[in-house]
Amino acid sequence: MFREGPKEACGVIGIFGHPDAARLTYLGLYALQHRGQESAGITVSDGKKISSHKGMGLVADVFSGNTLDKLKGDRGIGHVRYSTTGSSNIKNAQPFMVEYSRGKIAVGHNGNLVNTRKLRDELEAHGAIFQTTMDSELIVHLIANARKKKLEDNVVYALSQLKGAYSLVLITEDQVIVARDPNGFRPLCLGKLNGAYVVASETCAFDLIQAKYVRDIEPGEILFIKKDGLKSVTPFKSVKHSFCIFEYIYFARPDSNIFGSNVYLTRRRLGEELAKEAPVKADMVIPVPDSGNYAGLGYAHASGLPFEMGIVRNHYIGRTFIQPSQYIRDFGVKIKLNPVRELIKGKRIVLVEDSIVRGTTSRTRVRTLRDMGAKEVHMCVSCPPHIFPCYYGIDFPTTEELIASSKSVEKIADFIGLDSLQYLSVEGMLKSMPISRKEFCTACFTRNCPVVPDDGGTDKNVFERD
Amino acid sequence: MFREGPKEACGVIGIFGHPDAARLTYLGLYALQHRGQESAGITVSDGKKISSHKGMGLVADVFSGNTLDKLKGDRGIGHVRYSTTGSSNIKNAQPFMVEYSRGKIAVGHNGNLVNTRKLRDELEAHGAIFQTTMDSELIVHLIANARKKKLEDNVVYALSQLKGAYSLVLITEDQVIVARDPNGFRPLCLGKLNGAYVVASETCAFDLIQAKYVRDIEPGEILFIKKDGLKSVTPFKSVKHSFCIFEYIYFARPDSNIFGSNVYLTRRRLGEELAKEAPVKADMVIPVPDSGNYAGLGYAHASGLPFEMGIVRNHYIGRTFIQPSQYIRDFGVKIKLNPVRELIKGKRIVLVEDSIVRGTTSRTRVRTLRDMGAKEVHMCVSCPPHIFPCYYGIDFPTTEELIASSKSVEKIADFIGLDSLQYLSVEGMLKSMPISRKEFCTACFTRNCPVVPDDGGTDKNVFERD
Amino acid sequence: MFREGPKEACGVIGIFGHPDAARLTYLGLYALQHRGQESAGITVSDGKKISSHKGMGLVADVFSGNTLDKLKGDRGIGHVRYSTTGSSNIKNAQPFMVEYSRGKIAVGHNGNLVNTRKLRDELEAHGAIFQTTMDSELIVHLIANARKKKLEDNVVYALSQLKGAYSLVLITEDQVIVARDPNGFRPLCLGKLNGAYVVASETCAFDLIQAKYVRDIEPGEILFIKKDGLKSVTPFKSVKHSFCIFEYIYFARPDSNIFGSNVYLTRRRLGEELAKEAPVKADMVIPVPDSGNYAGLGYAHASGLPFEMGIVRNHYIGRTFIQPSQYIRDFGVKIKLNPVRELIKGKRIVLVEDSIVRGTTSRTRVRTLRDMGAKEVHMCVSCPPHIFPCYYGIDFPTTEELIASSKSVEKIADFIGLDSLQYLSVEGMLKSMPISRKEFCTACFTRNCPVVPDDGGTDKNVFERD
Amino acid sequence: MFREGPKEACGVIGIFGHPDAARLTYLGLYALQHRGQESAGITVSDGKKISSHKGMGLVADVFSGNTLDKLKGDRGIGHVRYSTTGSSNIKNAQPFMVEYSRGKIAVGHNGNLVNTRKLRDELEAHGAIFQTTMDSELIVHLIANARKKKLEDNVVYALSQLKGAYSLVLITEDQVIVARDPNGFRPLCLGKLNGAYVVASETCAFDLIQAKYVRDIEPGEILFIKKDGLKSVTPFKSVKHSFCIFEYIYFARPDSNIFGSNVYLTRRRLGEELAKEAPVKADMVIPVPDSGNYAGLGYAHASGLPFEMGIVRNHYIGRTFIQPSQYIRDFGVKIKLNPVRELIKGKRIVLVEDSIVRGTTSRTRVRTLRDMGAKEVHMCVSCPPHIFPCYYGIDFPTTEELIASSKSVEKIADFIGLDSLQYLSVEGMLKSMPISRKEFCTACFTRNCPVVPDDGGTDKNVFERD
Repeated sequence: MFREGPKEACGVIGIFGHPDAARLTYLGLYALQHRGQESAGITVSDGKKISSHKGMGLVADVFSGNTLDKLKGDRGIGHVRYSTTGSSNIKNAQPFMVEYSRGKIAVGHNGNLVNTRKLRDELEAHGAIFQTTMDSELIVHLIANARKKKLEDNVVYALSQLKGAYSLVLITEDQVIVARDPNGFRPLCLGKLNGAYVVASETCAFDLIQAKYVRDIEPGEILFIKKDGLKSVTPFKSVKHSFCIFEYIYFARPDSNIFGSNVYLTRRRLGEELAKEAPVKADMVIPVPDSGNYAGLGYAHASGLPFEMGIVRNHYIGRTFIQPSQYIRDFGVKIKLNPVRELIKGKRIVLVEDSIVRGTTSRTRVRTLRDMGAKEVHMCVSCPPHIFPCYYGIDFPTTEELIASSKSVEKIADFIGLDSLQYLSVEGMLKSMPISRKEFCTACFTRNCPVVPDDGGTDKNVFERD
Repeated sequence: MFREGPKEACGVIGIFGHPDAARLTYLGLYALQHRGQESAGITVSDGKKISSHKGMGLVADVFSGNTLDKLKGDRGIGHVRYSTTGSSNIKNAQPFMVEYSRGKIAVGHNGNLVNTRKLRDELEAHGAIFQTTMDSELIVHLIANARKKKLEDNVVYALSQLKGAYSLVLITEDQVIVARDPNGFRPLCLGKLNGAYVVASETCAFDLIQAKYVRDIEPGEILFIKKDGLKSVTPFKSVKHSFCIFEYIYFARPDSNIFGSNVYLTRRRLGEELAKEAPVKADMVIPVPDSGNYAGLGYAHASGLPFEMGIVRNHYIGRTFIQPSQYIRDFGVKIKLNPVRELIKGKRIVLVEDSIVRGTTSRTRVRTLRDMGAKEVHMCVSCPPHIFPCYYGIDFPTTEELIASSKSVEKIADFIGLDSLQYLSVEGMLKSMPISRKEFCTACFTRNCPVVPDDGGTDKNVFERD
Repeated sequence: MFREGPKEACGVIGIFGHPDAARLTYLGLYALQHRGQESAGITVSDGKKISSHKGMGLVADVFSGNTLDKLKGDRGIGHVRYSTTGSSNIKNAQPFMVEYSRGKIAVGHNGNLVNTRKLRDELEAHGAIFQTTMDSELIVHLIANARKKKLEDNVVYALSQLKGAYSLVLITEDQVIVARDPNGFRPLCLGKLNGAYVVASETCAFDLIQAKYVRDIEPGEILFIKKDGLKSVTPFKSVKHSFCIFEYIYFARPDSNIFGSNVYLTRRRLGEELAKEAPVKADMVIPVPDSGNYAGLGYAHASGLPFEMGIVRNHYIGRTFIQPSQYIRDFGVKIKLNPVRELIKGKRIVLVEDSIVRGTTSRTRVRTLRDMGAKEVHMCVSCPPHIFPCYYGIDFPTTEELIASSKSVEKIADFIGLDSLQYLSVEGMLKSMPISRKEFCTACFTRNCPVVPDDGGTDKNVFERD
Repeated sequence: MFREGPKEACGVIGIFGHPDAARLTYLGLYALQHRGQESAGITVSDGKKISSHKGMGLVADVFSGNTLDKLKGDRGIGHVRYSTTGSSNIKNAQPFMVEYSRGKIAVGHNGNLVNTRKLRDELEAHGAIFQTTMDSELIVHLIANARKKKLEDNVVYALSQLKGAYSLVLITEDQVIVARDPNGFRPLCLGKLNGAYVVASETCAFDLIQAKYVRDIEPGEILFIKKDGLKSVTPFKSVKHSFCIFEYIYFARPDSNIFGSNVYLTRRRLGEELAKEAPVKADMVIPVPDSGNYAGLGYAHASGLPFEMGIVRNHYIGRTFIQPSQYIRDFGVKIKLNPVRELIKGKRIVLVEDSIVRGTTSRTRVRTLRDMGAKEVHMCVSCPPHIFPCYYGIDFPTTEELIASSKSVEKIADFIGLDSLQYLSVEGMLKSMPISRKEFCTACFTRNCPVVPDDGGTDKNVFERD
């Protein structure tokens, strides 16, 4: 009856030592909204009393001035969550808070664990009860069961049991704890705002609250932030890093720095590299907005072709279309983007995109371009073909649904209706990265999984959900 | 930081073996709505899959046709809950469902335990985490921790740990379990609807779904209802019964049978007895609607005074006034009831009421009667003075707030502004009961507590809440 | 395309000269909520600026403390409305406010006009446009088109065009105007609260705000209330009065005085008269709550049979069941009322009701009584059979739907499943009235229409609706 | 008490002859959502019966599948509305429907009339009543009062009374009527979809529903579309055209054609011209997204400077920030856009924007750029300074609030905190237009008003509002 939890794309934030912790956490979540739009939550503490508020929907809908005023304290954590499963439920909103022998503790998690089944079975065998299928609940159970004298030791023990990806923020009555898994799958940054410590999934959250970036939380590092300061421990065996390369390509905001470097500049370089690998004879470069914008700029620059923002985005699409339903998504394609007929009529176009997942959305777009008179449509993708799902927290469809897992590039071009289709090579992708190629997890392009799931990682087990 | 949970007044229902279990549970909750208006929930199973829906508010607001259609199965349990604390929260809605080593289990609870603190400390010391302060969560923890081979034995073990009041319904994938504490504080009835088994807090639920009353669940009895039939066990040492006498006086619906006998007829007898003990020279008997209606009828009949429904109830008071706030409650007094001026002008009135708690509401009412020209206002109450709070699930105010705990009858009459005030005696109350006087808990009138709380039962501990 | 507007049952209130006019109007509407639950509205003026708020639903849902705070002024009018048609629409909420040559004017109307078609045709022929089908809009058009020098004269002119029933409150920037049609179909009372003038459909509104009843607005009277005092005019030819007798029987609140006398005492007398006309050999009298309560008391008293409140009302039926849908209504019958099985088993019952409209609800109730073991069920109705719809503002079904319009009393008894059925005679009804029998409209029992509708009053025209 | 109605920016659509008129109107409104986000409405007819639905909020929020299913018919009109005044009220949503002597008529209006006061006074003097301050209500009054034999003549008469801007869609039971004022202030296009006629404010609506653009509605043209075809009349004296030049610069969608030519290409040309007039020594061109995107591309191309999308837009800003409050707007500036620090650090930037109204938003943006390390910030605006409000339907602030009405370019640069500020000249703007410079209204830049308001056009009168 129990299945591996839903893959989640999430964002986390934490702060310690600022009188308006709740409002800063709120603003930070605003900046991280792209990492999860399903639910949002904030838990704060004034050193003695923990208060929490969470709800379904966007940060702006979940919190009001009144709600924030009630969240009193100088330390707090926040979380935004996205799930593609039907289980949109307030129960699954985070931070996840419980009471146990030491008092209260709340946790916000970004990433995905790959040995939850085993850990959960063990806990249940000892009498544990579970109210959700979230990794967060499992983590708290492990902390409560560690039963060492010091909270620090319990946290270290609990994390030592975990396999997979986690960028974590925890809060108790008196401290904020921050942790990143030894592989470092997901980003996590440390900043300062006047005297206060801040952590966030991406630096764009620091920009909004005017905090200063200090450094990344190291893979395998745990921070205990208390009144008497920040204590860093790195209790786990060091392993090869596995930074998620797809955060650079697609997921993170372009104005963020992650893994120590800027996303916008990296995406532009991917486009430049793509122009070298995949030259096309055409009249103009048009990015798919906004995902292809930055690679498009790089492609145009490197190729010398004019850059045109020839597909216009409708900014007023309303709430309905944010819902994760297949029907709506297709309808959304037509409503969200419209090409500029006068610009493209009779023209040869290079369409730059950052990825192709199912191919259906691209097919609709290309058809629209042709209907409006485009003479040729060539597509250039700023990463290699996606052939494998992600075990570590990016919510891809199953292997079967990934068009590149079963179709050749030519077949995909046919399916989408292109004059030509070219992907960036794995080599080209790695070459464009701002840091050493050895740091990355590229499993979705290469099937090289840095951490093998307990269940062998067959597709089925990974993606069966409650 | 942990405190004894809020006292709750609740209603439960269970059904096994009917194709439309959800809809019948829904209707049953409708009939039990007077036992709790804060939240409502239903959990059903089709033998393999458990589904649940719960929400804040009245049964009619929480469930729609759509919601009920999604609750598929031939067995189910339901719960309505009321809490006077500020913690109106969806987290506290029941049935409370978890997953543990044997699968899923959900529980709905009416009553109040008096040794939760101790049990919770023990569980937390062994690594348990708690997400709520509800007794239900504690009970599930105990079942999950029993770790005997058979579910039945786990349930028996868990219940054997409990002290206090519980009328319980539980559901797992394949069975419905029903239990009543050995004292039998709260009512719980067994019925049949065609081939299906039904249990409910009161028989009024049976009337609505046209089920036939069979018998009460016995104090200390546990029912395990499965595909192959109903199994009854009575594993606990038999103790003196402690049926809540206040259910007869005030809490249950008059059209219900509880503890084997009818409520309406009992209340009428209380009024008749009251007329004998407390005769008044007056022109008419007016009940406070609707609480005093049935004792009022008895009083009028036994005294020979004319019965008049001289205080009119406004049925359209809307949602706002259901909220448990002191400000609104006072406002509500004036809006809810209005006397008939032409009827009472210049008249001597016997006002019959079923209880006085704080006295403030009565005071407002009596003042209105006088403003409208009543010549004399005498009040007769169909039970003895309330001098002690309830540890077993009725939500009275603290001892300090109970007017009779500190004031003499004369002082209360003065406070309310009466020409005379008379309460029914303990003896008269017990004499009016349809069953042996030995069966009852009368702690709120006599301070004789059948089960002493672990913390000694000081007022303070009982009523401190989260 | 245009049809006669929906029949409405409504309540109105007006106040002049109190600093908290909005809040008093609000409380008054609360007391009048039984006259209309679909929408509520308040319009106030501070002498210069008019403000308005209205909404769908109960008074308590439409207004909050904030809304009331924004309605500044010392004079105001209020309205509650009920319509059985599907056109539940905010457009139809009142007071209905417009701007015209003299400034702003708003109107709240209780009653129904019978020459709207003709008036509307004339106005449209002169270029008028209509946004609703409400009588209120028509009345305002007439005022705006009168084009006499003084507002008073315009109002008199406009009302002189109307045929049918109206109890009206109007407000302009500087005055409140109150009017009642010459027949006086609907009640309308004048009161004082300290120095302020108050008018309301029923005196129960005065009780709640502690105003003192002064007198009724006379049929054909118009009050102009301004800073310099109240001016009463009676410009219309005096006609025979036609007070709605059904207000006494059913519609008004028992604690109200209307047409100068109390409703409760009148209903009790109807029951006493009924006992004389329709004696039954039985064990007890049970009223259908709450409609049959007062006639039931009278019946029991006059007959010497014991009075029992043997059908219990569920007070927590929630919002859903207030909706005017046939499906819900039937479901509601079963949920709203439950007999006390122990009381009625084997007994002969006189069921007292204030009216039978379609007969379907009564049938369900009687069936339930029999299912629970009642030996005999006799029904006594405290008015004559309803054989004709109402043109003047009570929302009955069409003639075809009125069971008594086509079925004999015996056939109705058969349909409902009674041992016997007896109605009060027209003579008995009139005899029970507190004022002269000549004052009443009894059209729904006798077909004697005091004011003949323009369209001849065929059923069809009256009840065809948008 | 009456004031000129609120200035509105709106969008209209109409369709005749398609079985799914409601759904196409809905999609068309989606495409026109940028023209109004406050309310949306659709009115359809099946030739006999008119149905309507409107509500506050975005098109996606106002309409559901159910609502659309109920709007049956093969012809319809739709409207989106935006108002900056506080009077966000459902009463002001359009289409505005009434019933008058000929039956029902509904109207949707884009533009602003300048002689409403006079027309309204005349109508009120003849007994008219008004429920809103919308131009639409006035227009319907005029049609209803024309009292000629044929509807066509009434419409012509009514429009002949109007001064100012109107692009209108009207619907009666059997026809759709479309009109554009003789100056042609606002755009209005005619298209065909299979056999059906479609009209819309902009061609982007045609793209979404796959209709084919045919031609613009001519200034002064009225279309009567009935079952037997489309009839065009041009009854008014021809006047010099006054196409709103700001529609090209700012208001229309870039993928639309208006006034016969494409918006995107025009904006790019404005940028090219700007680069010629206002060369800057800099490292990169960054547009303010999305308003400056197209002029930015043109500027970059003509200047040879690299184009960078260096300010990133947060797409998930939620509902709160759509509200038109000053407080929220400022907060929104910081949340909506974030520069890419790594890109701009130490760089000289040309910031391209399409207009400056108050200057406060720009100031916040420039400050953020400097905080992030930009070495120089130069701003180039793709139109001349705004010195005058608009009488014809664009909602600018009052003259006092327009920064350029009182400050020199140098002072504005100081206020915003720029190294340099350059506006495009009137000559340059007109030169960039795709059609003859004589066709345009440039009043907001030049104070040359093509149609003088009745009240003399003082600022005060124009912008005083209810």
